[in-house]
Amino acid sequence: MAEKRKIGILGASGYTGAELVRLLLRHPRIEIALLTADRKAGQRMGDVFPQFAPYELPTLVAIDGIEWVGAGLDLVFCALPHATTQKVLKELLAQAPATKVVDLSADFRLTDAAAYARWYGHEHHAPELQREAVYGLVEVYRRDIKKARLVANPGCYTTCAQLPLVPLIKARAIELEGIVIDAKSGMTGAGRAAREEMLFSEVSEGFHAYGVGQHRHMAELDQEFSKAAGKDVLVSFTPHLVPMNRGILSTIYVRGRRGRSAAELHAILAEHYAREPFVHVLPFGKVPHTRHVRGSNMTFIGVAADRAEGRAIICAALDNLTKGASGQAVQNMNLMLGFAETLGIDMPALFP
Amino acid sequence: MAEKRKIGILGASGYTGAELVRLLLRHPRIEIALLTADRKAGQRMGDVFPQFAPYELPTLVAIDGIEWVGAGLDLVFCALPHATTQKVLKELLAQAPATKVVDLSADFRLTDAAAYARWYGHEHHAPELQREAVYGLVEVYRRDIKKARLVANPGCYTTCAQLPLVPLIKARAIELEGIVIDAKSGMTGAGRAAREEMLFSEVSEGFHAYGVGQHRHMAELDQEFSKAAGKDVLVSFTPHLVPMNRGILSTIYVRGRRGRSAAELHAILAEHYAREPFVHVLPFGKVPHTRHVRGSNMTFIGVAADRAEGRAIICAALDNLTKGASGQAVQNMNLMLGFAETLGIDMPALFP
Amino acid sequence: MAEKRKIGILGASGYTGAELVRLLLRHPRIEIALLTADRKAGQRMGDVFPQFAPYELPTLVAIDGIEWVGAGLDLVFCALPHATTQKVLKELLAQAPATKVVDLSADFRLTDAAAYARWYGHEHHAPELQREAVYGLVEVYRRDIKKARLVANPGCYTTCAQLPLVPLIKARAIELEGIVIDAKSGMTGAGRAAREEMLFSEVSEGFHAYGVGQHRHMAELDQEFSKAAGKDVLVSFTPHLVPMNRGILSTIYVRGRRGRSAAELHAILAEHYAREPFVHVLPFGKVPHTRHVRGSNMTFIGVAADRAEGRAIICAALDNLTKGASGQAVQNMNLMLGFAETLGIDMPALFP
Amino acid sequence: MAEKRKIGILGASGYTGAELVRLLLRHPRIEIALLTADRKAGQRMGDVFPQFAPYELPTLVAIDGIEWVGAGLDLVFCALPHATTQKVLKELLAQAPATKVVDLSADFRLTDAAAYARWYGHEHHAPELQREAVYGLVEVYRRDIKKARLVANPGCYTTCAQLPLVPLIKARAIELEGIVIDAKSGMTGAGRAAREEMLFSEVSEGFHAYGVGQHRHMAELDQEFSKAAGKDVLVSFTPHLVPMNRGILSTIYVRGRRGRSAAELHAILAEHYAREPFVHVLPFGKVPHTRHVRGSNMTFIGVAADRAEGRAIICAALDNLTKGASGQAVQNMNLMLGFAETLGIDMPALFP
Repeated sequence: MAEKRKIGILGASGYTGAELVRLLLRHPRIEIALLTADRKAGQRMGDVFPQFAPYELPTLVAIDGIEWVGAGLDLVFCALPHATTQKVLKELLAQAPATKVVDLSADFRLTDAAAYARWYGHEHHAPELQREAVYGLVEVYRRDIKKARLVANPGCYTTCAQLPLVPLIKARAIELEGIVIDAKSGMTGAGRAAREEMLFSEVSEGFHAYGVGQHRHMAELDQEFSKAAGKDVLVSFTPHLVPMNRGILSTIYVRGRRGRSAAELHAILAEHYAREPFVHVLPFGKVPHTRHVRGSNMTFIGVAADRAEGRAIICAALDNLTKGASGQAVQNMNLMLGFAETLGIDMPALFP
Repeated sequence: MAEKRKIGILGASGYTGAELVRLLLRHPRIEIALLTADRKAGQRMGDVFPQFAPYELPTLVAIDGIEWVGAGLDLVFCALPHATTQKVLKELLAQAPATKVVDLSADFRLTDAAAYARWYGHEHHAPELQREAVYGLVEVYRRDIKKARLVANPGCYTTCAQLPLVPLIKARAIELEGIVIDAKSGMTGAGRAAREEMLFSEVSEGFHAYGVGQHRHMAELDQEFSKAAGKDVLVSFTPHLVPMNRGILSTIYVRGRRGRSAAELHAILAEHYAREPFVHVLPFGKVPHTRHVRGSNMTFIGVAADRAEGRAIICAALDNLTKGASGQAVQNMNLMLGFAETLGIDMPALFP
Repeated sequence: MAEKRKIGILGASGYTGAELVRLLLRHPRIEIALLTADRKAGQRMGDVFPQFAPYELPTLVAIDGIEWVGAGLDLVFCALPHATTQKVLKELLAQAPATKVVDLSADFRLTDAAAYARWYGHEHHAPELQREAVYGLVEVYRRDIKKARLVANPGCYTTCAQLPLVPLIKARAIELEGIVIDAKSGMTGAGRAAREEMLFSEVSEGFHAYGVGQHRHMAELDQEFSKAAGKDVLVSFTPHLVPMNRGILSTIYVRGRRGRSAAELHAILAEHYAREPFVHVLPFGKVPHTRHVRGSNMTFIGVAADRAEGRAIICAALDNLTKGASGQAVQNMNLMLGFAETLGIDMPALFP
Repeated sequence: MAEKRKIGILGASGYTGAELVRLLLRHPRIEIALLTADRKAGQRMGDVFPQFAPYELPTLVAIDGIEWVGAGLDLVFCALPHATTQKVLKELLAQAPATKVVDLSADFRLTDAAAYARWYGHEHHAPELQREAVYGLVEVYRRDIKKARLVANPGCYTTCAQLPLVPLIKARAIELEGIVIDAKSGMTGAGRAAREEMLFSEVSEGFHAYGVGQHRHMAELDQEFSKAAGKDVLVSFTPHLVPMNRGILSTIYVRGRRGRSAAELHAILAEHYAREPFVHVLPFGKVPHTRHVRGSNMTFIGVAADRAEGRAIICAALDNLTKGASGQAVQNMNLMLGFAETLGIDMPALFP
């Protein structure tokens, strides 16, 4: 049997941390060698997430004491909050420069220092790493990721908008003006922090939008759509919260360019993704459900004609914790460590 | 104490029927004198909806045997399926022409015979009633409703789109091209028929769009928006299902006309609805939750600026069974019978 | 029109506070004159609970500055946390002894000073009030409540266990040994405090017991069952959390005494509650659903035969925020202020 | 790589069928060679369960035309409705006697012909197979299962009651009189048939018991508990429906025999299951959540002391579709085909 590679997870007590553990426990080439959680240091993973009680896993430790060279990690997943991330990764890579990193925060997704400062209100604390980081949307940047040391794992909302839109923008098949992305997410996207507005009684049996007109994820969309188009693209984007745990659905309103019909847009996407393991384009006119990708690394895309001439409605669905976060992170890891891209993450969805 | 008026509910075993009973049981001027449910004839209302077991209510009967003159009803709510409605109301009004009717189906909402035939695939079976019917969106047609014999109660989705948009269209404040209405509804909007796709295990913990590009509610929107604009208006409209019982949220994307800002659109709506009892415009930038109107007859409207210059995002929320159906029907009844408009339907929302 | 009585709600920013406001806004004889919420003082009720934004209500104030005599309140609902309550009510009643009080906390439910000290780990801070307080289970203590100044509103779990069991115990119809009460509650019973274990993602799509073998509500059950029996009664009681907002269901396992059959137990309850407005006994063999009492002040009770000879299974359902808290509190207020017992709280349940 | 064994799934369009496909798609030694669904014959599995659209799977066929010998199946999972099963399996095993069968229905779980006739109201249609069938609770009958041709996979409720109770009964550690099993199940246990009482709007946001005093699962409990005890055991058992998809929690009330404490009962279970891969006993006093076993084949068991001297409260949790049905079926298959018992079913739970 091939030797296992040692990985660490920084920030293992959050939902993306737990999802990484779920996936990596069954990955045949990986050994989970380090789990950190500053406020829960000393506890076992099974205390923090009881589903792991039956498994052997390292005890949670604080980041501060870690000796990165001695840890001998091949790759580190970083699932820390904004800001902390820059400092921790700077130190880690200074001490152990051969370690590879998949960062699940937003800290290294923006490649432009000015854009970062504008959206986050301060200079980046690790600008050289910011320049080095590769944006980890595998279906777009696969080649670069294979050679990368530091990969910035994309956001969940943005993955669910880029996968359907980037090929259409690149093919110059849609108008760049007036694109509307109406996005709906399950509650795990908001993380595990105890906040009143995330209580069961506050969010069940209801639906609402939030961050209207100002959500930070837009920076990432601007960057990637503009890059794909070769000029500035600014979309309308509204996130909403659905009373469910997992799943994002993006409903996207576009106009075909130069008379492109909805069916032609569908054909472009169907062909583009024909050989992708984690993107499935439904037959024309069919729409995806988030529940049919739950717990899997799959993205489902559907395209239908709007009744307004020349307009199409595109729906994309993925699991925000899997393809939208930890599954995509393992997909990146597989490429970075030279494994088959689907290794350990090719499980079917859990439905019902 | 003022004399009570006798009302009947045709189709009392569905969800809108139950919601009518809930509201009318506490209405001080109403006596529920007749309840029909063809397939459950002979049963008590408390067998079909156990929450009513403690209340005195007429036993469910079939429509066929009813002698409309002898029934002595002042007003009838008709909550029957499409098609049945036309035949039943034609007969009822032929026999007892003084009876007033609030129809909750879609059968009398379209005033244009050609539009009806186009959307429903057949000629209308009661064209003279179709001409007589008044469209029951109180905030727009209050005066006509007071004098009407037959009121066509609006659809839930369309109420939630018209209340925010009609005043803006009438004020010529927004562009008529490219309006996008992304609508999300709770499950009760789908009714009580036993269908696989409505099972708990099929719809909980997930989210999806349906009827993309082709939903029948669009006919009603076309009619009312075009009337408000004085010319043809065609919007993009996509309905979605949320794993919750009650509530509709419409997220609406518009562009201000001639430089109108989002704040100006907000001001128009705030002023327009300042004295309406069942429409509440939130402070600029705030967005409504469906849970905060649950079980009430209230509509909440929020307006926020999109970051794209000149565009606004409008959210409207209502309870599809109350303001979106039975509450609005009672509001119509109050006007038709000369009661105070808010009588019996001014209860606050049930949250949490 | 009769003059309105002025009431205050201490702790209006919690769920029981919001439920009181919901009920009292439609109460024809009540004016809400004071709302307190220490941490949200200065905010409007509509900021804290947006469903009340359309209503005129007093601004939230802190308790500390209140001049109780000048406030001129006829009755105060106290929905404060444990411990705070004793201090606040002691002061209030010292300053304004004519004010009536319905306390929704557990602080005055135990009449025995020693039992209180044993369960709560400290002496009671207002022992003279503890002696004065009347236990507010209307169906048992109606007469005393009418004359009371201070009523201790029962707990939600305990109301749902006492209503079915007290009449059977008093009738000596069941064995006192081996009674099992398996109770299930919606999430609002846990309140609005932001705790990780109450997050949507932690509690949806799952089910669990808590406080097994040691829940404080048992003290109240011990007291009332023992009082009814005339000797010590100790039941097995396990609370569980259901992923829903409102509702408690108690499944109760009993053995008939001296050959009493399940049908005989049913007959005792049916007769006992025949004229009670807020307790409805279902036909023998039928079981209640919590959803059919949602938002109402009703308790549904069902009795079925166990297949084990001589044993019966009793299910009782109520809404923990209404009959289990604020609805019962208003029922108590109605008696204390001389109103009809059902005034303002006779609304049917909200289902679906 | 070892040769793959060919399996068939009869009744693949139900939830247990889908769960089998989910598990077997990742099983390294299995090829899914046949899928039947009479009413959906001719459709692809991805039409019936869209989560499988990206996978290569046999088209659904009707059972009637199948030539069992030519099919060359090593093992068949039978997930057909009651009654159908007996006829189909009789024919299948007559034609292809070397085929092994795991039956997920209740048809072969009762070994006693008289008990079967009493509970189901008719003679068994395949009495010789009834005698041959081995009851498939692996943790109890592992040896027999390894040699069996026909295994009757246990019910979900009964698995969740037997795993905690059988070892205690065998150890004569608890009283056999007065055992109470209060069981709560997610909605998938009710299957995929379109019935009004299973609609989302009927079952969300509420809780209720059903089949009180008379559920057929009791026959299975009687059989196995009596066998374990060596004499007749009759328990009280009440099933309830939880508004969630997956999961069963049993709350079990027992009395220790001859002074056995709750801690001693815990010790017996902890030792008994120390080496079982799919049963995990929590530390004394801790209770399981169904969410922590979701999608896994694991059973979690917790034991706590009741405050009533000598009584204990035991909670057990499993996923009704996995360990309660299809996961256990694959566990049985693994034994019957000589694979490692955990092969393909050792995935961690999906939480959140």
